[in-house]
Amino acid sequence: MASASHAPTPLLKDELDIVIPTIRNLDFLEMWRPFFQPYHLIIVQDGDPSKIIRVPEGFDYELYNRNDINRMLGPKASCISFKDSACRCFGYMVSKKKYIYTIDDDCFVAKDPLGKDINALEQHIKNLLSPSTPFFFNTLYDPYRVGADFVRGYPFSLREGVPTAVSHGLWLNIPDYDAPTQLVKPLERNTRYVDAILTIPKGTLFPMCGMNLAFDRELIGPAMYFGLMGDGQPIGRYDDMWAGWCTKVITDHLGLGVKTGLPYIWHSKASNPFVNLKKEYNGIFWQEELIPFFQSVSLPKEATTVQKCYLELAKQVRAKLGKVDGYFNKLADSMVTWIEAWDELNPPKGGVPTANGPPKK
Amino acid sequence: MASASHAPTPLLKDELDIVIPTIRNLDFLEMWRPFFQPYHLIIVQDGDPSKIIRVPEGFDYELYNRNDINRMLGPKASCISFKDSACRCFGYMVSKKKYIYTIDDDCFVAKDPLGKDINALEQHIKNLLSPSTPFFFNTLYDPYRVGADFVRGYPFSLREGVPTAVSHGLWLNIPDYDAPTQLVKPLERNTRYVDAILTIPKGTLFPMCGMNLAFDRELIGPAMYFGLMGDGQPIGRYDDMWAGWCTKVITDHLGLGVKTGLPYIWHSKASNPFVNLKKEYNGIFWQEELIPFFQSVSLPKEATTVQKCYLELAKQVRAKLGKVDGYFNKLADSMVTWIEAWDELNPPKGGVPTANGPPKK
Repeated sequence: MASASHAPTPLLKDELDIVIPTIRNLDFLEMWRPFFQPYHLIIVQDGDPSKIIRVPEGFDYELYNRNDINRMLGPKASCISFKDSACRCFGYMVSKKKYIYTIDDDCFVAKDPLGKDINALEQHIKNLLSPSTPFFFNTLYDPYRVGADFVRGYPFSLREGVPTAVSHGLWLNIPDYDAPTQLVKPLERNTRYVDAILTIPKGTLFPMCGMNLAFDRELIGPAMYFGLMGDGQPIGRYDDMWAGWCTKVITDHLGLGVKTGLPYIWHSKASNPFVNLKKEYNGIFWQEELIPFFQSVSLPKEATTVQKCYLELAKQVRAKLGKVDGYFNKLADSMVTWIEAWDELNPPKGGVPTANGPPKK
Repeated sequence: MASASHAPTPLLKDELDIVIPTIRNLDFLEMWRPFFQPYHLIIVQDGDPSKIIRVPEGFDYELYNRNDINRMLGPKASCISFKDSACRCFGYMVSKKKYIYTIDDDCFVAKDPLGKDINALEQHIKNLLSPSTPFFFNTLYDPYRVGADFVRGYPFSLREGVPTAVSHGLWLNIPDYDAPTQLVKPLERNTRYVDAILTIPKGTLFPMCGMNLAFDRELIGPAMYFGLMGDGQPIGRYDDMWAGWCTKVITDHLGLGVKTGLPYIWHSKASNPFVNLKKEYNGIFWQEELIPFFQSVSLPKEATTVQKCYLELAKQVRAKLGKVDGYFNKLADSMVTWIEAWDELNPPKGGVPTANGPPKK
């Protein structure tokens, strides 16, 4: 079991923010109280800013609605999606912490096979604080877990691993299916608890879901842009996918790791597949071009920071995906705006000017 | 659970041979009787050929000792290792079946978390008969299992998958560690039952263990050469690793899949770490060169069969690893001999002459 670690897991309570996008009262936090209460929450309110979002007592939080985003970013606010959970990435930008955990408000505490409540956040922290092994596959999965190790034939020179940038958690109950699969299998539930964490190998893309996700903001934050989705855009439900593909290409380039597997959360309710189909339609079509694009992206040696990688990626998106649909030119613009806004809110330490000029704040 | 499939799993009893290398009486088969008795066994007796190996009653088997190998292969017998379980690959060569399952004689029936005996062979057959997904990672693991599917963001064009060539099973109890890890962690036992099967992504190498392994002989058989190990050789315990690296490079080139995960067997006893260290010493050292070599191998377009791929690989082994140690020139020679012997015992269907000339038998 994941909890068998001998050393107590650092809480990182002053180094981690929990980012929650929402349009409703956050009653779901009651269930998470034992695990989340020590942490600071960043709530990104989507939709009507005049609506009051109730947060259960005792939580330490800051809340941003659309008016706040517009006020803080000015014209650059255009890069933050509206009426789509992609707006959550605004929370990543305003955080000042090293780590981010983001969770959807329809995700509850799951139980492990012994019936014990799973502290998802604690497992994410363990994942982020132990290295990743992207260069060679270990058949006993995460070699750093208690009771596991590198197996025979694993090169010794690779056993130190690399820093972990992303921890991608999974979901029991409602699986994260696309609309066509939801329509075909409306009753399918994920009941299989797979007691594993593994590194996604270098060069391999994966579908990153934003429902239950943690990352090291210092290592990879600026790549965690959830794109332009929702209101006024021809696509939805590809926000986390977009972020995942960009992130994976950049972590591969920078020699960082991405883990997937534990922890599970309990995903309580399926979204409407008919609504989803409308949001996904273009994405399902476009992703057939996006995957080959991301599989063949090559970043130059000079791209030594996440920002530089991301701006280079934006350039390639415009050059190669602009012809798929004009939307990708808009998206490429937004990717640049996102980095400008990120650098504005997160001036480089020591005040060193960035490629985009000195911090303007 | 793996057994939840709705369709009965085909037994393939006339299409699969079980290959067992051994130096002792095969009492371990008693435990496997309910699962193995319908199948034909190919026993490869290692060591002293005058020793009598007892096989429990009721099993259908053929047994080959060193004298048989020498008689059948003549001078080409030099490619089959002696005093090393690498000799098992002779069994792959003499089989006439489509599928091979190979297991070590210190591997017993494991139990699933509900306490039920695991029919390892049945799970391997399921793995081999369902496709693999090497081009994109599915976060819910094998999408073809009951209760699972492709998740949101998985390109639809990739959902058919590719034929599965290899099913790599795991081990409860004694993990497959190298000598240094055995020495450092003598008491470590693998108690974690991970209820997953997954495809090793394209471009990723893995440590393939021969203890509990199944493959499609028609798709990949000639790549399953376990190398030159043991008696008279400067290396042991890298037989299955060598086969795994060659196989992975070739399946990647040919668009075939390799799965790992379920089923588990119960590995009953750890081999002597001091003896193992002596066998492994060179391998531990050499593998630091071997992995970059295999990671950078590129096979030409014209290599459209496993044999052609393998001969090309032999050429590259000689060219690039010969300078690491003279052993690799010998190994490259043996790789060629292995293919010649394979083609001799397995003349192409329809009697079409091979690249090595017409079948000589």
